[in-house]
Amino acid sequence: MTSATLLTSKSAENDPTGFRDLQPLIEEALATACDFGAGCPERLGDAMRYAVLAPGKRLRPALVLMAAEACGGQIIHAMPGAVAVEMIHAYSLIHDDLPAMDDDDLRRGRPTCHIKFDEATAILAGDALIAQAFTHLCENVSDPLLAATAVRTLAKAAGPCHLVGGQADDLAAENRFVEPEESASKDEIQITGGDNTAALMHLESIHQRKTGALIAASLSLGATLSGGTEQHRAALACFAKNVGLAFQVVDDLLDLTADAAAMGKRTGKDAVKGKLTYPGLLGLEGAKQRAEDLTRKAQEAIKVFGKRNWRLSSLANYVLERQH
Amino acid sequence: MTSATLLTSKSAENDPTGFRDLQPLIEEALATACDFGAGCPERLGDAMRYAVLAPGKRLRPALVLMAAEACGGQIIHAMPGAVAVEMIHAYSLIHDDLPAMDDDDLRRGRPTCHIKFDEATAILAGDALIAQAFTHLCENVSDPLLAATAVRTLAKAAGPCHLVGGQADDLAAENRFVEPEESASKDEIQITGGDNTAALMHLESIHQRKTGALIAASLSLGATLSGGTEQHRAALACFAKNVGLAFQVVDDLLDLTADAAAMGKRTGKDAVKGKLTYPGLLGLEGAKQRAEDLTRKAQEAIKVFGKRNWRLSSLANYVLERQH
Repeated sequence: MTSATLLTSKSAENDPTGFRDLQPLIEEALATACDFGAGCPERLGDAMRYAVLAPGKRLRPALVLMAAEACGGQIIHAMPGAVAVEMIHAYSLIHDDLPAMDDDDLRRGRPTCHIKFDEATAILAGDALIAQAFTHLCENVSDPLLAATAVRTLAKAAGPCHLVGGQADDLAAENRFVEPEESASKDEIQITGGDNTAALMHLESIHQRKTGALIAASLSLGATLSGGTEQHRAALACFAKNVGLAFQVVDDLLDLTADAAAMGKRTGKDAVKGKLTYPGLLGLEGAKQRAEDLTRKAQEAIKVFGKRNWRLSSLANYVLERQH
Repeated sequence: MTSATLLTSKSAENDPTGFRDLQPLIEEALATACDFGAGCPERLGDAMRYAVLAPGKRLRPALVLMAAEACGGQIIHAMPGAVAVEMIHAYSLIHDDLPAMDDDDLRRGRPTCHIKFDEATAILAGDALIAQAFTHLCENVSDPLLAATAVRTLAKAAGPCHLVGGQADDLAAENRFVEPEESASKDEIQITGGDNTAALMHLESIHQRKTGALIAASLSLGATLSGGTEQHRAALACFAKNVGLAFQVVDDLLDLTADAAAMGKRTGKDAVKGKLTYPGLLGLEGAKQRAEDLTRKAQEAIKVFGKRNWRLSSLANYVLERQH
């Protein structure tokens, strides 16, 4: 399958997610990239592969490729960015699940990395994946200017002001706004009163960094690796901001409403732990409305790409309507 | 102080370490680089600075600058590499000290990062420093080819086949060759018998990766950022290999012979934990001889630089003769 056939595939255009035909290409590239060489200790490599190759939607890599196509580039040229961003995403999940962090033992129905292996191996696998993401970019993007720009974009998104900073604030925010006792029951979630505007701004700031930064970086990487213009970049940044927040609002809603089997992880846990959530601050209906507003803004932003926006447009609707 | 005055400074040439005059320049650059921006949560930034700006010899950054000077370049042009490698080194110390890893609560007389802050913050500070190292390189090396080459060098050295792989093997090697009970007393350390050749090769493999890779990367970064030739690179790689191992042999010797106050950390601990060490495998005298042989080979390698090798030459002797 080539990017040319992808562009003209009618079945792909009927795909509600906008990226189902990209997934096998991404899986293949990830599997190839997960050969870390003879110098990599076996258990460490196994733990890295366990995390990167875990079943998943590949949303972030898909965004890289979709942005590249929207900007008029070849999907294949953007693949190094797709692989690198998924390695960063995989590292962040490994470390977020650690006992000292969110202390999760299950992710998408599988034991988390530190449960399957051990805590030291999980820490090291995460560390190695960060470095490997940048190695992969530099080894697979032949133009040094594009490689350096891509590294800078991804490194900033993964750094202390964005991905890591968001996780730090997320941990710090636990129990700050909502009393665990008040939010322990799924049925009783509602606006908690008090200064919700400040809490909402704080919540959006956390998510813009924790989730939004990597989504924005994915789209920016796609633009970089396909020679996108400044106008393209601005449109993708606006799309990223709105879809990223919509993704998080829907995640919070699913955490409350989906059952454990569908999500493959313990649900309602965020509320029990007293974490800030959109339904907690806006109520169920308010959160649903917020997700719809954000999706509409995202759709507006990508009109600049004309018909080449169909993947991004489908994706925005999919984020809003997904059930898991 | 400029790099021009550094090159001609007689007092600097009398410095037995070869880099004492570089240290204030490095400290200044690190302090400037540790302003992570308004988006960085305060506690996270504090933890990152606590680790990066901790008192230290700045051996790796000094090696970057020394290699640049040996290759005929300007020290100041290599400073982004010096800062980046120290960030990677600082991250590796934070994570190595974690309870799930070496479980150290003291480093150079100060509480380790997870003791001073908390475990989650320490994990995140380490993660953020890896990303920040690459951001710093890309933002401060203006030539994209040099930036991409530098990122590739440092990312490979920090990755699963080198720095992280070495730490993984180091943890796995604990208690494999030496019984803790036999090596618990400092006075009783001796060759443990059995297949020492295999154990020695395994030990060197670990150290070439855990310590050696970052030392080699430091010298390589200096060559890259100063336009060093292939001959320069080969000489620096040979120097790196031998000085790196000598550094580790001396570290093992100091672990046995120095007292806790001088080292600022618990001594003899490696032996108690049953870790592979050079004195454990070669005996005290054998280990000392090994360090001297390695230093001689390092000195041979840098003859190609003529008089511009004085810093590297002093450094090799300093590594051999240091008391802490």
